[in-house]
Amino acid sequence: MHAEPRLIEVRKNVLKQNDVVARSLRDRFRAAGVFVVSLVSSPGSGKTAFLEKILTLLRSNYRVAALVGDLATENDALRLARSKAPVRQITTGTLCHLEAAMVQNALEEEEWDINRLDFLFIENVGNLVCPSSYDLGEDLRIVLISVTEGEDKPLKYPTIFNSADVAVVTKIDLAAAVEFSWETAYKNIQSVRPGMQVFKLSAKTGEGMEEQLNFLGARLSQLRQSAVV
Amino acid sequence: MHAEPRLIEVRKNVLKQNDVVARSLRDRFRAAGVFVVSLVSSPGSGKTAFLEKILTLLRSNYRVAALVGDLATENDALRLARSKAPVRQITTGTLCHLEAAMVQNALEEEEWDINRLDFLFIENVGNLVCPSSYDLGEDLRIVLISVTEGEDKPLKYPTIFNSADVAVVTKIDLAAAVEFSWETAYKNIQSVRPGMQVFKLSAKTGEGMEEQLNFLGARLSQLRQSAVV
Repeated sequence: MHAEPRLIEVRKNVLKQNDVVARSLRDRFRAAGVFVVSLVSSPGSGKTAFLEKILTLLRSNYRVAALVGDLATENDALRLARSKAPVRQITTGTLCHLEAAMVQNALEEEEWDINRLDFLFIENVGNLVCPSSYDLGEDLRIVLISVTEGEDKPLKYPTIFNSADVAVVTKIDLAAAVEFSWETAYKNIQSVRPGMQVFKLSAKTGEGMEEQLNFLGARLSQLRQSAVV
Repeated sequence: MHAEPRLIEVRKNVLKQNDVVARSLRDRFRAAGVFVVSLVSSPGSGKTAFLEKILTLLRSNYRVAALVGDLATENDALRLARSKAPVRQITTGTLCHLEAAMVQNALEEEEWDINRLDFLFIENVGNLVCPSSYDLGEDLRIVLISVTEGEDKPLKYPTIFNSADVAVVTKIDLAAAVEFSWETAYKNIQSVRPGMQVFKLSAKTGEGMEEQLNFLGARLSQLRQSAVV
């Protein structure tokens, strides 16, 4: 069992290379004036439902597009096509996370001009561990956690909460049915990431979506203003 | 970006070493006459709730113990202590799966005599990707999926369904609230793993637990009979 140090060394190289690609992506996004949001969560937390809703709502006022990562299927891209926003699927095979180079390749193969976008969303593979170490050049990383998963997830997966910028509690319409405690969940998030902004919403009922829209709109304005100065 | 072939090669070595340890664990389990069940699922699917319930129920007639894998916390071991069964936590740090060597080490550090056990449960880290490649020497691998995660999970994570022996649909008491379709979920499981036996249950209401107890009891009897012959 002496392979572990070698594995760690190779992993470090992969991460370093990923950071280089992520940096160049970030420069490109910044130059294009597009605000890039990535979504991480465990499988079934409602990333795709959230994305379908937010793309549909944002489309009234903004130019939006999405890249969605998945091991095997193109189901998410088909679901998201209902939002009428341009969506491209990235299939990762057996890899448990997206890497910056996959985002780069997807953008090259796609005919989108990112200069014509306001928001680009990147939905990562459903996984609360692997995506945390891979920078994708995004401006904002949102970690989603559904009320059905239990309030202890931030304590059990602290790294992903630390790598994210804001947290979104999803499926809030089911909170009573699963006896979800907002106070406990909020306290647990704050204990692993003090000061983290936490939203709650339901893509199904629409509760909390307007607040989310306003938040993202404000972040885009900030980005544009900082670019002007 | 030339590190990937090296990474794959090192990964193959790690997997090969894992298989060697898993084989020796399996021999040891077989010699001890203990039936070993591992649980895999995404975070929040209800592995720990299922385990607490099944340990409590099995304890009336069998000698049981559990190993539980987690990145950071010992919460699961504390929750499972309520079942009054001996439970040991394995903390994996940032690793997204258990490895056979971790199981081996945990058994060595622990004073349990596996020769005195009927069932040993191993709860893997909550992850639908990484655990699929790591044999832990178990007799039965159960993949759990909750009704709240959506029926498409088998299609999106086919490898883990292929590496598992049976599937358990959890939180069936919430099926109506989330408009879960048993037919669709069952069909999706069968399409990635034809013939797979699928159970449904609720650790909360107890629905389906007796069927699960009978199934595990029968599998233990089979194991003991095959050892006699």
